[in-house]
Amino acid sequence: MVKGKVALFLEPKKPLQIKEIEFPDPSYDEVLIKVKAVGVCHTDLATIDGEFPPPPLMPTVLGHEIAGEIVKVGKGVKDAKPGDRVVLSWLWHTCGKCQHCRRGNEQLCDNLVETGRHVYGGYAEYVIAKASHVLPIPSNVPWEYAPAATDAIATPFKGLRVAGAMEGDIVTVWGIGSLGFNAIQVAKAKGCMVIAVGRSEFKLKRALEVGADYVVNSNKEDPVKKIIELSAGGADIALQLVPTDVATYEQAFNSLRKGGKLILLGYPQGKLCLPVIEWGLTEKSVIASLAFTRYDIAESLRLLSQGKVKPVITVYKGGIEKINEALDDLRKGKVLGRPILLMD
Amino acid sequence: MVKGKVALFLEPKKPLQIKEIEFPDPSYDEVLIKVKAVGVCHTDLATIDGEFPPPPLMPTVLGHEIAGEIVKVGKGVKDAKPGDRVVLSWLWHTCGKCQHCRRGNEQLCDNLVETGRHVYGGYAEYVIAKASHVLPIPSNVPWEYAPAATDAIATPFKGLRVAGAMEGDIVTVWGIGSLGFNAIQVAKAKGCMVIAVGRSEFKLKRALEVGADYVVNSNKEDPVKKIIELSAGGADIALQLVPTDVATYEQAFNSLRKGGKLILLGYPQGKLCLPVIEWGLTEKSVIASLAFTRYDIAESLRLLSQGKVKPVITVYKGGIEKINEALDDLRKGKVLGRPILLMD
Amino acid sequence: MVKGKVALFLEPKKPLQIKEIEFPDPSYDEVLIKVKAVGVCHTDLATIDGEFPPPPLMPTVLGHEIAGEIVKVGKGVKDAKPGDRVVLSWLWHTCGKCQHCRRGNEQLCDNLVETGRHVYGGYAEYVIAKASHVLPIPSNVPWEYAPAATDAIATPFKGLRVAGAMEGDIVTVWGIGSLGFNAIQVAKAKGCMVIAVGRSEFKLKRALEVGADYVVNSNKEDPVKKIIELSAGGADIALQLVPTDVATYEQAFNSLRKGGKLILLGYPQGKLCLPVIEWGLTEKSVIASLAFTRYDIAESLRLLSQGKVKPVITVYKGGIEKINEALDDLRKGKVLGRPILLMD
Amino acid sequence: MVKGKVALFLEPKKPLQIKEIEFPDPSYDEVLIKVKAVGVCHTDLATIDGEFPPPPLMPTVLGHEIAGEIVKVGKGVKDAKPGDRVVLSWLWHTCGKCQHCRRGNEQLCDNLVETGRHVYGGYAEYVIAKASHVLPIPSNVPWEYAPAATDAIATPFKGLRVAGAMEGDIVTVWGIGSLGFNAIQVAKAKGCMVIAVGRSEFKLKRALEVGADYVVNSNKEDPVKKIIELSAGGADIALQLVPTDVATYEQAFNSLRKGGKLILLGYPQGKLCLPVIEWGLTEKSVIASLAFTRYDIAESLRLLSQGKVKPVITVYKGGIEKINEALDDLRKGKVLGRPILLMD
Repeated sequence: MVKGKVALFLEPKKPLQIKEIEFPDPSYDEVLIKVKAVGVCHTDLATIDGEFPPPPLMPTVLGHEIAGEIVKVGKGVKDAKPGDRVVLSWLWHTCGKCQHCRRGNEQLCDNLVETGRHVYGGYAEYVIAKASHVLPIPSNVPWEYAPAATDAIATPFKGLRVAGAMEGDIVTVWGIGSLGFNAIQVAKAKGCMVIAVGRSEFKLKRALEVGADYVVNSNKEDPVKKIIELSAGGADIALQLVPTDVATYEQAFNSLRKGGKLILLGYPQGKLCLPVIEWGLTEKSVIASLAFTRYDIAESLRLLSQGKVKPVITVYKGGIEKINEALDDLRKGKVLGRPILLMD
Repeated sequence: MVKGKVALFLEPKKPLQIKEIEFPDPSYDEVLIKVKAVGVCHTDLATIDGEFPPPPLMPTVLGHEIAGEIVKVGKGVKDAKPGDRVVLSWLWHTCGKCQHCRRGNEQLCDNLVETGRHVYGGYAEYVIAKASHVLPIPSNVPWEYAPAATDAIATPFKGLRVAGAMEGDIVTVWGIGSLGFNAIQVAKAKGCMVIAVGRSEFKLKRALEVGADYVVNSNKEDPVKKIIELSAGGADIALQLVPTDVATYEQAFNSLRKGGKLILLGYPQGKLCLPVIEWGLTEKSVIASLAFTRYDIAESLRLLSQGKVKPVITVYKGGIEKINEALDDLRKGKVLGRPILLMD
Repeated sequence: MVKGKVALFLEPKKPLQIKEIEFPDPSYDEVLIKVKAVGVCHTDLATIDGEFPPPPLMPTVLGHEIAGEIVKVGKGVKDAKPGDRVVLSWLWHTCGKCQHCRRGNEQLCDNLVETGRHVYGGYAEYVIAKASHVLPIPSNVPWEYAPAATDAIATPFKGLRVAGAMEGDIVTVWGIGSLGFNAIQVAKAKGCMVIAVGRSEFKLKRALEVGADYVVNSNKEDPVKKIIELSAGGADIALQLVPTDVATYEQAFNSLRKGGKLILLGYPQGKLCLPVIEWGLTEKSVIASLAFTRYDIAESLRLLSQGKVKPVITVYKGGIEKINEALDDLRKGKVLGRPILLMD
Repeated sequence: MVKGKVALFLEPKKPLQIKEIEFPDPSYDEVLIKVKAVGVCHTDLATIDGEFPPPPLMPTVLGHEIAGEIVKVGKGVKDAKPGDRVVLSWLWHTCGKCQHCRRGNEQLCDNLVETGRHVYGGYAEYVIAKASHVLPIPSNVPWEYAPAATDAIATPFKGLRVAGAMEGDIVTVWGIGSLGFNAIQVAKAKGCMVIAVGRSEFKLKRALEVGADYVVNSNKEDPVKKIIELSAGGADIALQLVPTDVATYEQAFNSLRKGGKLILLGYPQGKLCLPVIEWGLTEKSVIASLAFTRYDIAESLRLLSQGKVKPVITVYKGGIEKINEALDDLRKGKVLGRPILLMD
């Protein structure tokens, strides 16, 4: 048993409350992790602000992009040991045997236990995890970069995997935030041509710096027309990450070539309405991609280790004490890339 | 040069006009076919009735589900000869080298020449074809069945191919007409469980006869609820063939399980509107499938030859003289399955 | 703690020794299963006869095709409960996160714990299992059929999966034993044409009864010539299950059409030698398929439940007391299909 | 009709004979090409030296890696015109409708007409081609680079396609010649890690220059051991291009990780002998890849145009008059990369 602080989510629209609690010893197949860095995600912000319904477990500790060091292991654990540097994602536990797990889609697991929703998450000094669901961090990846592998890289990586992205494909990335910057880099690592679409000159400039071949400011020009021009007929793949504006999804669809694929990664309110006849004649696909699996996390860690992706992050030193500050900055749109709480 | 009759499409909303013309000799890479049987398709009806725009070539001869015997070949033709029994589809010519042909998607060919739209089609005693685009009819397939392979089987076959349908999958078929009956049989040949959805008790009874495991009358019960119940959680694949009612597309989507695929095969007017958040969380795909390729036609001929598909057809003996009668029956909804003009 | 009998493997070339032991309570993530039926496998026979090296854990309890009823669960187990009917295979535990597990190839798991090799197996009244690695038996599948899903169906099912077998493919099955009979039925369920190749008229007759379209007795005719004739050019897929004669692997290769696939499922001694130039010009593939995953087991259970596969078995009533008798019959080639010990 | 020189292959072991002939006008679906650059291939050398059997058409004009300008088109040609810069490969004509063409494997076409074997090839001032089988050269690709797209890039490109090579895969390239240099660059464009294996320090140094991450001199160290060390367990894919030494194929197989794929691209004499048990337990695949399709050629042209591949070539100015000199240099192993005859 160890004592440590957590940032408790007690009720919506209130700051998280820092409190010291006792962490139990890890069970047979579990590990106890000392958190070293944790990413602060828009989903958590929306939950705290009452836009999303509260988690099943209340009060709870949010935070599901976790990097840390194992300090204790359950007696049945054989493939992890104290001192191991690991990441833990949203996928706290998946059963491995339901219809979805069996097909390699553990993100849809019928028995999914979610970090920070069904069990305490990572806005804390310690977190308990299943040994089976932590993955080793390559030694050359620093703590502050590792959380990106558990969501902000893995999500676009999975989207491109589902799209079957290949070298030479023309990929548009819609929504230039922490995931968008990584989407650009993953697509470039795969040998694709990348067109980034956004509304902030500042972020589009950064998009070029991380590797986009072209950027389109949809405040200044018609993105559909511009993409069709740049790609000589339309993109092969559109990665849609925009969290709010469903109209941009229709634009992404319209800027695809015949046979192109629109991948839904952001989840705006509202309905996407598309004309069936045109859809049919152009033989396009609209494919939802939810989160990622441990495969995608491991590949994301590899991309970090090989230097193919450098996540755009804003580091908050001082650990979980800084959580409310980071949330507030995120709320105000003041953060470039992902906020990362870095423990001392 | 031979003389023969054609059913000319002169202007919308008028009957086709039977007329004798001279057919030129086939060019270097072409064959001249004596038509033996031709399917009458809803697309032609909609064109004749002025619902679809007239073809680029006017006046023209419609008809693109053709079975016949080769009577003459161009001097460069090596893989076809007089006496060969062949089919010809909508795909009069594809270039074989554009971006879509190269990827095996000749249905999207940038240089597509369409039978009955850019060149004279099959409501005629003879038709000219490229040798490369006719496929041999197995000897045990009768003339009246062969046209089905050029559309009414090939279209759902391709839809199931695009969906990656596998043995054990649960497939719903929406829209029980000439394509729907074949869709059921192809899905059964692949080892799928099939649920047919329609509104006519008569057609649903026929659906059971051709092999559907279950039928749902959406006039009598909520098809979404019923399908979820029959499939213990939702279908793997929905083949949507309904030509008119876009609301049924939303039902087809809603009756899928997590990770399920909706395949767009019918092309109703209007927009399909789907909620993005639910779409994302259930990780469904909506995939358009346009027509088919020569691969799908050849496989459809094989299915006919092996007796795995018996198309539902209504035969009109007397050849093209019966075209206006067949069109009228189709217009009035009086035909079960595909109308086939059978030459003497 | 419960007491129960096991058939101990003490040393090679000796009969297994029946003995009563105490079974510990299941750990946190484990279940205790009362064995109801267990398949007797050639691998175990070869191990007992000293042809294969002894398992890492000695003495041990062999047996890895297990069906039984859960009688007790560890305190962390949520998706299984006493009374559940389940199967347990060779895959006692896979880690879920190594490079192979992440890619859906848990049969190659770097941390694999094997039933009957690293832990006690199923020639016993009870067996301990990980809750994550038992799969529920559909209610209409009898005890004596269920073990087939853990190897004798799952192995050819996986082979056909790896081969990408599709409706219409021509599949040859080499080696007509317990796996071969199931291979035929799985291929037929998928809509393939099946040619079974063997040497025993008796077994080939049975192959026809379970669904083979054609059989070839390779003692009486040249199987390569015959298959090429029956398939009009060669098979699409050859499933090789023959345990002893590597020469038949070369025949299987030679009877493929251009682009065909030879799937290695049986593991004879010796080298398979193939001419590289011919291999290249015919663009064939030779693909090893090792065992199966939980996906394949679940699909095999579904096939049993839907009546698509009826395994060929020989039942030994009286449970593990009959193990040495069953092994002896197997040794002498006296058993048709899989020997199954059925508990009372 | 135009007059022009050809290099006639009259009989084995004699120099090609330069002769002026009359080229007929292109037929209906053909084009006449003025050759600008042509690659000299080992297959041609082996044919001339009598190691391979003579082509069906004798005497003939060899040469099947052709870049040139269209000077005349047949009257049925719509998608090509005089002045177009195009390439022509080995695939002079494929039927588009046989079982292999239908499945996207035109390299296996049952009715294949081969350039330089069934019709006159490119060691000539002019060559006749089917319009359907020439592909446009992007404007920024120089004449001397374009022939590489018709074999020396397309062959390894197709090999990696068949292998399903993905970003992050570890690829070994065996045989560092004109194809090997391109294989390295294509694999790098796809984001793979590349280990090149050869015997010449000079060529291995060049391999590093074109992008290999590591090189292994198999004269100096055990390549199997070294690759397993560099890849931490074995390569994902081995591209085998070695034309002579079948023992290196066994090494390539042995240096794969579990589940790895050996792709056969070179065609040495002799048999590849592999132990079945080990093959099975490591679940490896050995997959032959023959040549390429028009898809692969077009992608190779794109790679050239995007500067992702710079073929290693030796240019012979002076056109076909230099053919015997180029052949002789090739025979003596004096050429680095592909010899290219460049017309003035």
